[in-house]
Amino acid sequence: MLPHLPNAHTDCQVRVMEETVTNAEKYFGQFCLLLAAYTRKTARLRDKADKLVKQLIDFANTENLEMRTTLRNFAEDLAKVQDYRQAEVERLEFKVVNPLKLYGTQIKQTQAEIKKFKHVRNHEIKQLEKLEKLRQKSPSDRQMISQAETCVQRASVDAGRTTHQLEETVNAFQKQKLKDLQKILSDFVTIEMVFHAKAVEVYSSAFQTLERYDLERDLEDFRAKMHGVHRPYGPRDARPLTDTGPAAAAPWSLAQSAQSTMRSQRKEAESEDSSAEDPVEDLRGQGQGLHH
Amino acid sequence: MLPHLPNAHTDCQVRVMEETVTNAEKYFGQFCLLLAAYTRKTARLRDKADKLVKQLIDFANTENLEMRTTLRNFAEDLAKVQDYRQAEVERLEFKVVNPLKLYGTQIKQTQAEIKKFKHVRNHEIKQLEKLEKLRQKSPSDRQMISQAETCVQRASVDAGRTTHQLEETVNAFQKQKLKDLQKILSDFVTIEMVFHAKAVEVYSSAFQTLERYDLERDLEDFRAKMHGVHRPYGPRDARPLTDTGPAAAAPWSLAQSAQSTMRSQRKEAESEDSSAEDPVEDLRGQGQGLHH
Repeated sequence: MLPHLPNAHTDCQVRVMEETVTNAEKYFGQFCLLLAAYTRKTARLRDKADKLVKQLIDFANTENLEMRTTLRNFAEDLAKVQDYRQAEVERLEFKVVNPLKLYGTQIKQTQAEIKKFKHVRNHEIKQLEKLEKLRQKSPSDRQMISQAETCVQRASVDAGRTTHQLEETVNAFQKQKLKDLQKILSDFVTIEMVFHAKAVEVYSSAFQTLERYDLERDLEDFRAKMHGVHRPYGPRDARPLTDTGPAAAAPWSLAQSAQSTMRSQRKEAESEDSSAEDPVEDLRGQGQGLHH
Repeated sequence: MLPHLPNAHTDCQVRVMEETVTNAEKYFGQFCLLLAAYTRKTARLRDKADKLVKQLIDFANTENLEMRTTLRNFAEDLAKVQDYRQAEVERLEFKVVNPLKLYGTQIKQTQAEIKKFKHVRNHEIKQLEKLEKLRQKSPSDRQMISQAETCVQRASVDAGRTTHQLEETVNAFQKQKLKDLQKILSDFVTIEMVFHAKAVEVYSSAFQTLERYDLERDLEDFRAKMHGVHRPYGPRDARPLTDTGPAAAAPWSLAQSAQSTMRSQRKEAESEDSSAEDPVEDLRGQGQGLHH
């Protein structure tokens, strides 16, 4: 149909460019969604562990000294892991999810460039088709053909320049894309690596806490608690005898008061968490260390 | 009201016992729920990362050799972390959540013992009250009083024996509870520690993969891809010129075929995952190592 075309190989070029940008749009969008979901699930995991910490402290307060100390130390370590998880969540959002979100703009711009180029390219093709028709219908009209040839030439120069611009744009886009992807994935790995390394460290301490626990001493305390309270008889001691049935309410009210005490303690711990930026700073320092 | 009671301090004992069992019921129930939720959230995290692995491999297939290799190796490491996370989930269910679930039975049994004891104890109290009434109403009826005294004595012996039994039951319960709690928490820490340690190891390899990535070589390939395709003109090459507009569909169909290829590859990987028990075995070995 078109026997001759100066920039014919640009079709292949345009296809490569379009594929590049379309794939970037599709997959970077997916990466963004999935990494945002990954970050959210990590936050949910932190929430569950935080609740476990609270229950462990509440339970610790109902136990004797030995288990109470063990559980409190253990809960403290578990809470520390959650602080590192919180730092992980914040850093994932900041260094992984957000850069991927912002990627949409860059893709849109490159897509606009491609569209613009296609417009110019279509113009060139139309001029070529016009010339071709002229040559077939009125091969003797030298003036018209010469005029059409000038139009084709001008459109061809335009298309050539736009192709060059587009090529540069897409090259820059590709370079940035590859660089960014490497950076984002490296950041992801670093953030994860730092978190996991910190978790190993803190859990090692938690493991030692549990190893130190002295069951026998705890049981001695428990037996003493059961036997040791020989108060002289009085109306308070006799009372539960008359209402042995509903006396079952007593442990509940005791447990309740223990709970409310703990609730305020936990609040203190929480306000400490929110103000303590150290683990995050610590992680950042480590992250940089790992980068080098 | 009751001037004399042989086992008066048992009231304190019973209260301690009831508190112990009630608290165990309440808090072990909470631990079970929260750790089951923690395990579930971990599984969700694994799911999201698995999807990310799939998208990374799909995207890798649209890229040039350099990024393709990097992304595939990276995705493989990310998948490996998920295998370890899967092992973590299975081990948490088996060694942490299940033992806590089974705890309910033990608690029910001990509660039944306490109830039984209370019944016997109530009987003793009723006998005492009867005796007291008799002494007040008919202090001269020696025979009735003597008979009531025998009843009180018998009930008291019964209560004493039951108290002793209950004490042994609750002591055993407490011992088992403390031991189990230490074991369950130690198992939790070990499982987490092994997972985090493995994750650090695998992510270190992933980090190196990303560091080895050669951006310049990749860009050379990309430029070659755009310029290198100088095929002789023919009807197939001319075709896209006539439909430049809808030609945008081409990258989509290309991306689609790349996807379907990858889907089958991923399936292979998945079937490998399910059959490969090695990481789990590996973890178990490590877990035992950490226990000693």
